[in-house]
Amino acid sequence: MGGKNRSSGKGPGGKRWQRRADPKRARGPRRERRSGDHVLLYGWHPVQAALENPARRFHRLLATENAARRLEEAGLTGRISPEIVRPGAIDALLSPDAVHQGIYTEVDPLPAPALDEIPDGLVLVLDQITDPHNFGAIVRSAAAFDVKAIVTTARHSPEATGVLAKSASGGLEHVPIVLVQNLARAMAELREADFQLVGLAEEGETDLAEAPLRAPLALVVGAEGKGLRQLTRETCDFLARLDLPGAIKSLNVSNATAIALHIAARAIR
Amino acid sequence: MGGKNRSSGKGPGGKRWQRRADPKRARGPRRERRSGDHVLLYGWHPVQAALENPARRFHRLLATENAARRLEEAGLTGRISPEIVRPGAIDALLSPDAVHQGIYTEVDPLPAPALDEIPDGLVLVLDQITDPHNFGAIVRSAAAFDVKAIVTTARHSPEATGVLAKSASGGLEHVPIVLVQNLARAMAELREADFQLVGLAEEGETDLAEAPLRAPLALVVGAEGKGLRQLTRETCDFLARLDLPGAIKSLNVSNATAIALHIAARAIR
Repeated sequence: MGGKNRSSGKGPGGKRWQRRADPKRARGPRRERRSGDHVLLYGWHPVQAALENPARRFHRLLATENAARRLEEAGLTGRISPEIVRPGAIDALLSPDAVHQGIYTEVDPLPAPALDEIPDGLVLVLDQITDPHNFGAIVRSAAAFDVKAIVTTARHSPEATGVLAKSASGGLEHVPIVLVQNLARAMAELREADFQLVGLAEEGETDLAEAPLRAPLALVVGAEGKGLRQLTRETCDFLARLDLPGAIKSLNVSNATAIALHIAARAIR
Repeated sequence: MGGKNRSSGKGPGGKRWQRRADPKRARGPRRERRSGDHVLLYGWHPVQAALENPARRFHRLLATENAARRLEEAGLTGRISPEIVRPGAIDALLSPDAVHQGIYTEVDPLPAPALDEIPDGLVLVLDQITDPHNFGAIVRSAAAFDVKAIVTTARHSPEATGVLAKSASGGLEHVPIVLVQNLARAMAELREADFQLVGLAEEGETDLAEAPLRAPLALVVGAEGKGLRQLTRETCDFLARLDLPGAIKSLNVSNATAIALHIAARAIR
């Protein structure tokens, strides 16, 4: 539905949002990201999905004997040979509660498309969702619902590594994360590219399940409690709510997003 | 829809599943449940919701000066006066990553109905969902979708306290958790009470969104990875899947449950 106007004056090499240029991000190790600019992945699903992704570049792969055997059996040792280590060697690289299942790798971040290169379909715009578990669970649902990209700000978003990658359970390999400096400007650019911009908000005027959704569609989701920021809200075409018949009137943000993706994917398919 | 046959030979004081009688549960402190049989609640939402619930019995309420002021302003100090403490005093009672927001209480577990006392509507049956974060997020969604009860086994389920209560964000006050010894037997009893039993499974023959759902309805959900156990699966009326058009074919269990609740609540309203 709707005419396309995706490359208005911008070629494939044209203007891009500065995706990795934020000095706060480029410089240094922050919490889990301790190996320069490498992304850390651990646990079976994230590492398996990365090994199956031809776009990933590997620096190191550590595995216990058992995990290495499992990799061998799954035919996943062609690209990089695991260094066999004791579990304690991986424990030492991660926080104490990280469930690594004897497997750990350091890889390059994946390249992300520019905003005007995102294919038509369903896109998620995340406004300051800072919790890495929630962000990761959202990435996983996004991969399940064939989301073409997640657009979020470089600041106030967790790094696509460690806990986030673990919660995403391999989803990072399928959904590019486009980091922008200014969310409202990015939304305006999506609108130029014909995306419908629908914000999820408790006070939305329509029930999302009854809303007139169309492709390409960008669902805009804010943090729990704070919700969408004023300018984000104003930049949406309209706000929609999820009707909740029970006593509690808000959901965990990843659960709300999953329901919204289910509704949107069915509406525009 | 469908005739009622809820009290066939069982009065209100009739047979009950042994809900608090499992000796493993009755005896003692296990992980976070450190104060005898008390339930620990911390963080603003769980404690606020408990203070607003006339069925909760309080033993202790600790609050920092700020939190106590907030309680006062919210008119929540009528039932128990908070002991004013420093944040460190609450830190010492919880695990290091617990976000308690300066407020902590010890309460009695809530009474739960017997299976044949659960009102008509939507019920969730959980088959060995052990992760307290996921279980808690499911309780929160259940409260949002007006679920009448969560039925689960006394063993292989996390305690309704601490991390679970925090993730449930007040939902525990609204959704009773009915603990049973044997899940298949409990499902059979729900069927006697006219509940339709629909299992969520990737290999389900129908898309849940297209399935012939009717009230009263029990949605049966298993753990990630393991799914429903064989007997649980066989005891369902039918299995339904969530259609996922993307590259990843499974969701986080709390996200899958949230989508299923959204679909079910709309189908039977």
